[in-house]
Amino acid sequence: MLEGIFAPIPTPFVAGAIAWDRLQDNVYKWSQTSLAGLVVLGSNGEFPLLKAEEKIALVQKVREWLPLEKKVIAGTGCEGTEEAVELCREYARAGADCALVLNPHFYKESYGDRALMAFYLSIAECSPLPLVLYNMPRNTGLNLAADLVIALSRHENIVGIKDSSGNVVQMAEICQAARADFAVMAGSASFLLPALAVGAVGGTMALANIMPEECGAVLEHFVAGRLAEARTLQWRLLAPNAAVTTRWGVAGLKAALDYLGYFGGEPRPPHLPLLAPEREKLIAVLKAAGL
Amino acid sequence: MLEGIFAPIPTPFVAGAIAWDRLQDNVYKWSQTSLAGLVVLGSNGEFPLLKAEEKIALVQKVREWLPLEKKVIAGTGCEGTEEAVELCREYARAGADCALVLNPHFYKESYGDRALMAFYLSIAECSPLPLVLYNMPRNTGLNLAADLVIALSRHENIVGIKDSSGNVVQMAEICQAARADFAVMAGSASFLLPALAVGAVGGTMALANIMPEECGAVLEHFVAGRLAEARTLQWRLLAPNAAVTTRWGVAGLKAALDYLGYFGGEPRPPHLPLLAPEREKLIAVLKAAGL
Amino acid sequence: MLEGIFAPIPTPFVAGAIAWDRLQDNVYKWSQTSLAGLVVLGSNGEFPLLKAEEKIALVQKVREWLPLEKKVIAGTGCEGTEEAVELCREYARAGADCALVLNPHFYKESYGDRALMAFYLSIAECSPLPLVLYNMPRNTGLNLAADLVIALSRHENIVGIKDSSGNVVQMAEICQAARADFAVMAGSASFLLPALAVGAVGGTMALANIMPEECGAVLEHFVAGRLAEARTLQWRLLAPNAAVTTRWGVAGLKAALDYLGYFGGEPRPPHLPLLAPEREKLIAVLKAAGL
Amino acid sequence: MLEGIFAPIPTPFVAGAIAWDRLQDNVYKWSQTSLAGLVVLGSNGEFPLLKAEEKIALVQKVREWLPLEKKVIAGTGCEGTEEAVELCREYARAGADCALVLNPHFYKESYGDRALMAFYLSIAECSPLPLVLYNMPRNTGLNLAADLVIALSRHENIVGIKDSSGNVVQMAEICQAARADFAVMAGSASFLLPALAVGAVGGTMALANIMPEECGAVLEHFVAGRLAEARTLQWRLLAPNAAVTTRWGVAGLKAALDYLGYFGGEPRPPHLPLLAPEREKLIAVLKAAGL
Repeated sequence: MLEGIFAPIPTPFVAGAIAWDRLQDNVYKWSQTSLAGLVVLGSNGEFPLLKAEEKIALVQKVREWLPLEKKVIAGTGCEGTEEAVELCREYARAGADCALVLNPHFYKESYGDRALMAFYLSIAECSPLPLVLYNMPRNTGLNLAADLVIALSRHENIVGIKDSSGNVVQMAEICQAARADFAVMAGSASFLLPALAVGAVGGTMALANIMPEECGAVLEHFVAGRLAEARTLQWRLLAPNAAVTTRWGVAGLKAALDYLGYFGGEPRPPHLPLLAPEREKLIAVLKAAGL
Repeated sequence: MLEGIFAPIPTPFVAGAIAWDRLQDNVYKWSQTSLAGLVVLGSNGEFPLLKAEEKIALVQKVREWLPLEKKVIAGTGCEGTEEAVELCREYARAGADCALVLNPHFYKESYGDRALMAFYLSIAECSPLPLVLYNMPRNTGLNLAADLVIALSRHENIVGIKDSSGNVVQMAEICQAARADFAVMAGSASFLLPALAVGAVGGTMALANIMPEECGAVLEHFVAGRLAEARTLQWRLLAPNAAVTTRWGVAGLKAALDYLGYFGGEPRPPHLPLLAPEREKLIAVLKAAGL
Repeated sequence: MLEGIFAPIPTPFVAGAIAWDRLQDNVYKWSQTSLAGLVVLGSNGEFPLLKAEEKIALVQKVREWLPLEKKVIAGTGCEGTEEAVELCREYARAGADCALVLNPHFYKESYGDRALMAFYLSIAECSPLPLVLYNMPRNTGLNLAADLVIALSRHENIVGIKDSSGNVVQMAEICQAARADFAVMAGSASFLLPALAVGAVGGTMALANIMPEECGAVLEHFVAGRLAEARTLQWRLLAPNAAVTTRWGVAGLKAALDYLGYFGGEPRPPHLPLLAPEREKLIAVLKAAGL
Repeated sequence: MLEGIFAPIPTPFVAGAIAWDRLQDNVYKWSQTSLAGLVVLGSNGEFPLLKAEEKIALVQKVREWLPLEKKVIAGTGCEGTEEAVELCREYARAGADCALVLNPHFYKESYGDRALMAFYLSIAECSPLPLVLYNMPRNTGLNLAADLVIALSRHENIVGIKDSSGNVVQMAEICQAARADFAVMAGSASFLLPALAVGAVGGTMALANIMPEECGAVLEHFVAGRLAEARTLQWRLLAPNAAVTTRWGVAGLKAALDYLGYFGGEPRPPHLPLLAPEREKLIAVLKAAGL
């Protein structure tokens, strides 16, 4: 069901409000690439800073503007089980192909595997959309362990995982033991090739917003058995990937989009836009990567 | 402005909806104690599982039911700066005395001191209510460092901090260097006495829901210079405190309330209620503590 | 058996070798203070950088030079059970009063409570010296949990703990439930007063090398019930304590000693001595603290 | 210089003393495999529990018993710069091919990149043996960051790294930017294939003690471009690898050797041997992996 490279798109703002026309332009540009689809309301979409109505409208609009052969994955990103179910229903009405469901994480010490299992199974039962698990320990402080993911893969409405942990051993364990058609997606371009090596079938990664073809080429080289080419390209992705993720985050990704002819704009507070010297360093990294 | 012992009350649910009558009964009982006030929508209030309308209604009702000589502190608990400002305004209309403002935390790597400073100062400028900072690293994965808190204490609309870190060195640093009337409140009964020793003026702590007089007595003994009595009582609080916080969390606090004649009920999913054997162990702890 | 303030002394080197005459001068100076004793080969003694012969000679010499009414505590600091036993025997021959025994920590994942219990009980059985447990999670990456310490306190040859964790809840739990005469010693001046508040009987702390009387006065004020004075003094210790511990470590402590008329000298590699600007900042901190 | 699969061998003890005859038998067996060489005194060698004389004798004996076409890498594993230099000299005399040099780690907060750089460069200058860096954050609590490793790779006497971090992004960064012939070796079989994918040239891994041919076959398949075969085999290594590393550690590895006809024996205290039920579970894992 899932395969290929997806871009988790940022939400463009002008004067604090969603800039629909800028979004439409961006979506048009991404639609001209080889991307398999877009993730609306992944972490780069700033979901914790948006209202439910904004989230639903975003999914609806992106689905409207993106050609149907490309998938739309819609992120829930909420703590409550019931709220997640409601969003899945709204996203289904809005035309999304699947829901990307982040685990709850505020009450870390209370969320053992029993609670996480119940959370995902409740949603899987009620959601009209197939679910993709979303493991993002750097932001959530919780990891979805291999055994939990493997158990969840037995539910037919749970079709894959975006794993941003960077833990390739865990990814290998999941690939080995999960349901055969369960899709493991690398959650960052920084470990795309090693994830593919152990069985991932694609990725959803910030860098795909600005280097969609290069991300796609790693996958293509790998599938065709051109390991040396894949490796050289993977190396080239490291620096620009760090720039728009761990180093400068969402604000960095938006600044990179601005530099590359997309609309990036400013993130919502409490995010801060890049300072001028940060922006210069970022652009230097992009130039060095051939952009 | 702040002083004494506050209970961060849980939100009672029946069949998933807020049980207003049960809440009213609970508030009445707490109003008969020596508590200085109630915190509505602290972590024990399950704020990440409530809608904005529910949050505002909760503050309004508790203010209505609680005698005016007791304070109401209302927790914002949201990621966005603008959303926090809106809540502060609504809470002011609802009659709250101050707002307890948790730091944003999802984009941990992007929230340096500059972003956190801007977040709090923006809210302090716009909020009709005085702010109490809320530091809860175990849940958020971020710590509000002493230097940041000291700098924020210079703003006249930032009046204190609930520090749940348990880091008494940090609390001492804040007490030493913050604005003279800036209130440091212990965020857990487990370190109430040592926090008082370095300059805290009270606390807001889960245990105060079920042992309000004992928490108050630690403070009283301390103020009166009866250190030995304070220490013996502090020791007695350790086990029941762990039971309703680190060990069994919100579900444990609710089960303890049920056992003690308040209404606790079930937490909202993804929280799970205690299993029967957990409940028995909890009750054994409470009994051993003389409850 | 243990009580009061102890200084964990650094080992002085000249041209890489132990500078015995400088050490003798230092010991003489410390002997003129109100310190209850010295800890030889605590973390500040750079024990991981010394050979067994050097360690034994250090204990012997310090015991020789320090008046008998002051205690000598000798640190083992080694990973192996047998090596620790051997050192305890040698330290007994060298005249030490007790052994400070750090937990093993390299194979963290293998050292559950069962292994740590066996480690300490084996040594307690064989050691001619009474043992003081040494909990130093910031350096070891392992914490000696309250339950383990309480269980170990049942052995008559285990007489106390130096707890450098800063976790006052844990210290309170130990004070409440350990053998009545089990001595809990604060492992840093930064939390001396709060540790006393929950039941500690003294401390062994880097800062006592350079501010022995001030550390002692916190204890004295506390015992006499002068809480306000104790608190003001505790606050004054915070900045110089950070300077010679978390901020600049052993090299900082040595530079502070040099500044204050003791011999500090350079630490052993891989420790680096302070750079000139670091030294200036350190001295500014000391001056601000009235030194 | 380095390439292929190395086994970091455990040190066999009988009644607490090194069992030289058992070691000789084991070495003979390993010499009949396709292993590229042995690591003496890696973490599995229990180096923190051995005296310097024992360490030197071990290297000497293994070199004597191992055919010369197979390499001997000797681990230093000590905190002091000078002690590490001395061991390198002794290991050179004992015939080792290179030294595996763990970073110092007790004074974590004092060991910034400047101190670690000085540590390694001092040793590289003085050591007659080429150095292999050893990054083992799970045990040391410190990570050798990519930038540091890349800078160290400029020194001609630093020839590679054993990276046990499992961080494939970091390995990719090192492979991309380090000296062309700098050897990155996977530090665990659990991520051998993904490490190879980003540029590693082999590995030194606990599992190679008991599954040397299977570890070697992953490398062979990879080099020959048989990715599917490499992946299937990599998956098969996951469970037995966990059993002899993260799950049961050195004691588990020794129990596995005993089961497979090598001599394992008991680890030195504070290590505990496996309990009977643990041993049974371990053997079940080995059987399930076809051993």
